[in-house]
Amino acid sequence: MSSPLRLGIAGLGTVGIGVVKIVQKHAELLGRRTGRAVTITAVSARDRMKNRDADLSAYRWEDDPNAVATADDVDVYVELVGGENGVARDSIEAALRAGKDVVTANKALLAVHGQALAELAESLGRVIRFEAAVAGGIPVIKAVTESLAGNELRRVMGVMNGTCNYILTRMESAGLPYEAVFEEARQLGYLEADPTLDVGGIDASHKLAILSSIAFGTRIDFGAVEIEGIERVSIDDIRRAADMGYRIKLLGVAQMTPRGLEQRMAPCLVPAESPLGQLMGGTNMVVVEGDSVGQIVLRGAGAGEGPTASAVLSDVVEIARGVRMPVFGQPAAALQRAKPARTAVPAAYYMRLELQDKPGALAKVATVLGDAGISIDRMRQYGQHSDSSVPVLVVTHKTTPEAIDYAIEALPRTGVLVSDPVELRIEEV
Amino acid sequence: MSSPLRLGIAGLGTVGIGVVKIVQKHAELLGRRTGRAVTITAVSARDRMKNRDADLSAYRWEDDPNAVATADDVDVYVELVGGENGVARDSIEAALRAGKDVVTANKALLAVHGQALAELAESLGRVIRFEAAVAGGIPVIKAVTESLAGNELRRVMGVMNGTCNYILTRMESAGLPYEAVFEEARQLGYLEADPTLDVGGIDASHKLAILSSIAFGTRIDFGAVEIEGIERVSIDDIRRAADMGYRIKLLGVAQMTPRGLEQRMAPCLVPAESPLGQLMGGTNMVVVEGDSVGQIVLRGAGAGEGPTASAVLSDVVEIARGVRMPVFGQPAAALQRAKPARTAVPAAYYMRLELQDKPGALAKVATVLGDAGISIDRMRQYGQHSDSSVPVLVVTHKTTPEAIDYAIEALPRTGVLVSDPVELRIEEV
Repeated sequence: MSSPLRLGIAGLGTVGIGVVKIVQKHAELLGRRTGRAVTITAVSARDRMKNRDADLSAYRWEDDPNAVATADDVDVYVELVGGENGVARDSIEAALRAGKDVVTANKALLAVHGQALAELAESLGRVIRFEAAVAGGIPVIKAVTESLAGNELRRVMGVMNGTCNYILTRMESAGLPYEAVFEEARQLGYLEADPTLDVGGIDASHKLAILSSIAFGTRIDFGAVEIEGIERVSIDDIRRAADMGYRIKLLGVAQMTPRGLEQRMAPCLVPAESPLGQLMGGTNMVVVEGDSVGQIVLRGAGAGEGPTASAVLSDVVEIARGVRMPVFGQPAAALQRAKPARTAVPAAYYMRLELQDKPGALAKVATVLGDAGISIDRMRQYGQHSDSSVPVLVVTHKTTPEAIDYAIEALPRTGVLVSDPVELRIEEV
Repeated sequence: MSSPLRLGIAGLGTVGIGVVKIVQKHAELLGRRTGRAVTITAVSARDRMKNRDADLSAYRWEDDPNAVATADDVDVYVELVGGENGVARDSIEAALRAGKDVVTANKALLAVHGQALAELAESLGRVIRFEAAVAGGIPVIKAVTESLAGNELRRVMGVMNGTCNYILTRMESAGLPYEAVFEEARQLGYLEADPTLDVGGIDASHKLAILSSIAFGTRIDFGAVEIEGIERVSIDDIRRAADMGYRIKLLGVAQMTPRGLEQRMAPCLVPAESPLGQLMGGTNMVVVEGDSVGQIVLRGAGAGEGPTASAVLSDVVEIARGVRMPVFGQPAAALQRAKPARTAVPAAYYMRLELQDKPGALAKVATVLGDAGISIDRMRQYGQHSDSSVPVLVVTHKTTPEAIDYAIEALPRTGVLVSDPVELRIEEV
């Protein structure tokens, strides 16, 4: 048996306590699986007096995370403080400089400063592992970096924010408008303190940016993600999409194209019968497509104490076993900047138009779509709304985002719409 | 850049040629991801003259796999010959003794001789990797051994034979009986030379035995798998199950219980809306349940050139990166024998009974079920069959396999059945 691997943990929220519990409960199991004891020597959190659901008495308490990060009796610094700057970043840098390996669940930090941190770690011969940063318990970082390493990857996509998927699922099942379900989610404690991180798509985009970096071997470029949240998804669109055999998901897609790297996070339609379409509630799903492997789908809990702590332990076990790898699968200094490309891969689109109930209204719409070069796959006109408008749904054949933009701009000028047209991409899955 | 990693490949069927193609096509990519060149120096197969879909001229040809396995200019022996004995086993042992690491896709060999091979490898300081042996391109070995290493696993299950799932799917979609679809599959070349390996559940059971070993840290015990193939699945049962909201899948389940390790491979009902129920055609799916992570679902192609070669490359990349781990995640010599337990975990069951159309027939059936201690969740009686029998479907509440066995034995003695009763377990997923 080798010497024990000694963890220092900063941040004792849900995930931190989850990690403590696993280390305590599975000491024997971890010993068998790694060939050495995995122990905790020091912990740190903001409030020492807070009542926590674990016995911390055997660990040295430090008020300052940096003291944990640099302690002589710590081999691995487990950063679970969160936040893209400040103490999380500082303490990780301090840990690396003090010769520690680092495990973190901090997607915001990695999405913004991952490149600099990886370069620092590699220049010092240290590793940073971050399985918990993307899609919680789903082993997607390992799958992409290791299991699919023989593939040129084409596209990675996923539903990576459980709160958004919960909201969209609940809107459909209860027939409630966005605002009502948002309020429910807030009261249930499902939302971040700043809810735009969730519903604005920021959190999921952090994950997408990390994922696309390891998938395509490019530098993380969070700033290049085209981000749209779920705020404009209406119960009307959820119902109409369901009529046409689709579900609306907040889907992140990263795709390498001849024009560059497309990274987009937006509500999309997916076939209701597809694995992504079947994904209800707070569960996450990541889909990875490689030139040899085809399509791999990974599904599981994307958040929560157990699943996220499980992912942290995956990294800890890897380090305990002596596995050492560049942070993003290949040396950070050699990672290329991807040319960011606006979404240009053609797709079918869903459009919902509320028309005046007048002769010739539909003809005007059809003319605009024709002028835009958009051909129609399916169209459905419904009976009058109470406000005497007529809802018309259009599913287009594959067309370019530019053509859709043109149509969305031109349609109101026909004078036959009673409200702004709605368009949503139908992602081929 | 470190020295190249030199592969010797024995077996140039679909998978072997797939590996050659990836190494040729992605030389640059593999170099970036591993920090060294991955090359092929020697190959071997039965028939040198066979026309193969790859240029092998740069590699030394050996008629004897053992010559590849022991060659001085080979670092990793890639065994794709297949078969649980003979040349596959001999050449792997020769390779290990000659100081080579081994990558294999040979599930039959591992299921039967995995323990001995792992002990040999570990005594010699060599590794054997086998991601391609279970569920093709799905990274399930790595997920279980590494990603979920912080979990005590409770249950692993999966649809791991694409041919069986193709047959069951096709029976449902085309409304054809088993024999007709079996014949179709044979003509399409989907079946092994010995088709009982597929439809008899043997191939899937090899995979299950390997999977349960790494999941529960026990010695592989293929002999303890309770195996039943899909031969007795009738189109009637597929239709009736669908009526009740289920699909029939050849499902492998390994479950650690207080009584021991249950390993079963059998046609089961699963809810049609579940991920397993949604799995159509030749796709595979593995579901892993851990105490912290909850349920993780992995889905992808379980066979075929690209997906299986992708899994082989995952192992090659791991070795190229210098990652070394015990064969089954912990030292083979320390693995315990699991006590094999007959299936005892209670479950709901589906029963189909063809009754004589006589007064009192149903009462007699209900009495037997009551005597067996089986309580009924749902029962459905259909109109007369052409042969004047009356089909009755029963879905029981959770009950023990023993109670079901008792009922199946007692039911024919009522004298009201026109054919043998059918029972299928409904696996909770």
